[in-house]
Amino acid sequence: MSTIPYDNIRPVQWEDGKLKLLDQRLLPAQTRWLLLHEVEQVREAIYTMVVRGAPAIGCSAAYGMALAAKNAPEDPDGFMAAVAAAAETLKSARPTAVNLAWAVDRLVRVIAARAAGSVAAAREAALEEAHALTDEDVRYCIQIGEASLPYIPESARILTHCNAGALATGGYGTALGVVRAAAGAGRLSMVYADETRPRQQGARLTAWELQQDGLPVTLIADTVAGSLMASGEIDLVVVGSDRIAANGDVANKIGTYQVAILAAYHQIPFYVAAPLSTVDFSTPDGSLIPIEERDPEEVAVIDGTRITPEGVACRNPAFDVTPHDLVKAIFTDRGVAEPPYGASLARLCDP
Amino acid sequence: MSTIPYDNIRPVQWEDGKLKLLDQRLLPAQTRWLLLHEVEQVREAIYTMVVRGAPAIGCSAAYGMALAAKNAPEDPDGFMAAVAAAAETLKSARPTAVNLAWAVDRLVRVIAARAAGSVAAAREAALEEAHALTDEDVRYCIQIGEASLPYIPESARILTHCNAGALATGGYGTALGVVRAAAGAGRLSMVYADETRPRQQGARLTAWELQQDGLPVTLIADTVAGSLMASGEIDLVVVGSDRIAANGDVANKIGTYQVAILAAYHQIPFYVAAPLSTVDFSTPDGSLIPIEERDPEEVAVIDGTRITPEGVACRNPAFDVTPHDLVKAIFTDRGVAEPPYGASLARLCDP
Repeated sequence: MSTIPYDNIRPVQWEDGKLKLLDQRLLPAQTRWLLLHEVEQVREAIYTMVVRGAPAIGCSAAYGMALAAKNAPEDPDGFMAAVAAAAETLKSARPTAVNLAWAVDRLVRVIAARAAGSVAAAREAALEEAHALTDEDVRYCIQIGEASLPYIPESARILTHCNAGALATGGYGTALGVVRAAAGAGRLSMVYADETRPRQQGARLTAWELQQDGLPVTLIADTVAGSLMASGEIDLVVVGSDRIAANGDVANKIGTYQVAILAAYHQIPFYVAAPLSTVDFSTPDGSLIPIEERDPEEVAVIDGTRITPEGVACRNPAFDVTPHDLVKAIFTDRGVAEPPYGASLARLCDP
Repeated sequence: MSTIPYDNIRPVQWEDGKLKLLDQRLLPAQTRWLLLHEVEQVREAIYTMVVRGAPAIGCSAAYGMALAAKNAPEDPDGFMAAVAAAAETLKSARPTAVNLAWAVDRLVRVIAARAAGSVAAAREAALEEAHALTDEDVRYCIQIGEASLPYIPESARILTHCNAGALATGGYGTALGVVRAAAGAGRLSMVYADETRPRQQGARLTAWELQQDGLPVTLIADTVAGSLMASGEIDLVVVGSDRIAANGDVANKIGTYQVAILAAYHQIPFYVAAPLSTVDFSTPDGSLIPIEERDPEEVAVIDGTRITPEGVACRNPAFDVTPHDLVKAIFTDRGVAEPPYGASLARLCDP
């Protein structure tokens, strides 16, 4: 197990009995933190994308459950009822990322196991579990980066889509964990960051966090990826994931699917980096993953300015599904899965 | 030959001895016209994209040459020297669209032929030629639309990239001419307009002009095209072109190339619509077409708001080249070219 420390960017923190979230909607212009003290605020923060990225949503939801336990009534029945209600509230925030339900269920199990003893013990255990889950997430990201190294060439020029970085996780990042590991091994030449419309996580978040860490980054519009591949300027693509089906189909930020097609056309390897908690073995294939459709105004309005006439319809799916046959390998905290993924992902989960 | 009138949107006009251009940088928020009375203003308008789209640039440059003739000295030697200098000035505005040089050279020939007679006759002939070229462009667009009809299914759902519409031509449009012809034939179900970052011509111009004409349009981020194709919501793709090489390779707005790859992957036909003046027979293949690299700030700043941190590098190629093997057919004013394009394009040029 790795002991590499990573404390530069930790978007989900706990401070004075409150959940402290970096407001990612304001980056890169402003670095502002929000302090949340009840579950409904956490649900709202996840829904409005104060915090985003499947693992970071999981960490936030775990702390949300710790807040729920803290605020729940003292009587044991009322306590567990409030905890169960909070779990439903949090799970309803966003549908696609499986880490959200996974983290909430994990906290519910811990709280329920301790609540039989005392409510005070259950509260303490909930907070400890949220801390553990978040620290674990950073450690897993570092392990993902280490697992990827045999796949990273010298002077690598890496294209990534959206932000699967420290900001999307407890810290360090999944896809950007691969980037950080490559940089640590002296093999990183350049990261090309897709802007990632409509929410521009590549421009606003990936470029920001790589600049913060002094890593080389070049921003491109989403329209440019194919051209860069054609001119031989991309060695590999790596992205994160919000949910991986049992057969290796990968749900991730809208636009990922087409980047995977472009990579295949140019014979450039396309990799996915994610903790094993992102694999949803109860979902056989990607067609069964729910895809969130968000407000069309996210497409029509940028920073308060309308870019298309009033009355023009917009489509705004937040995610897409990349079929497993376009994925060269999946880097996880417990090693690398290669096709066929049904077998290789299951094998990584064996203790 | 068609007699369908189209006067709804004419972005390049002549009024009171001046070139009148719709300032496309301000759409859709404002409809403002600029009046230009000298060549340097026309060059600036083309460079800064007051007017854009290869055919509309050609029309504007033709009027620019009419202005040059109008403003040139009376003495025959000084007159032709000023005309020649103006031609170089205009051609330097943007490198990729072949229609710019084509229109300028056509005006120079007409002016030179008449200047031997009298300077006054040359001035008059220049303006007549600019009018003729612009009216011809509208007529050619209508013919392009008619030529495309055998390729358009019932209830067609058409994806387009950038704006190859009335705004990009004398009027009616090339790719959107195909859309208008489909609508006229009762076969248009929906136009999906790619936003087309960085300049957002799809959101700002295509959505605006289709809405103006009461045609159905849905805006999508550039990241969504692949997903819509996968879900069976696109029947065909049609785009314009800034230059077509003799072998059928197509230079067009950045992002076109990857849309063509996505169409091929999903077995959706990808068509190009352009007047024959867009075919540059002196350029054997697309690798020889110069690709303009524009200011990185176009990527980093949208409507005055910076979307990525200061100091982050950006790449901003304005065009890309789609290899001919990804193009199913090219719709022109003189009929349809199909592979192999070397032969079929040359044949269309035969009188």
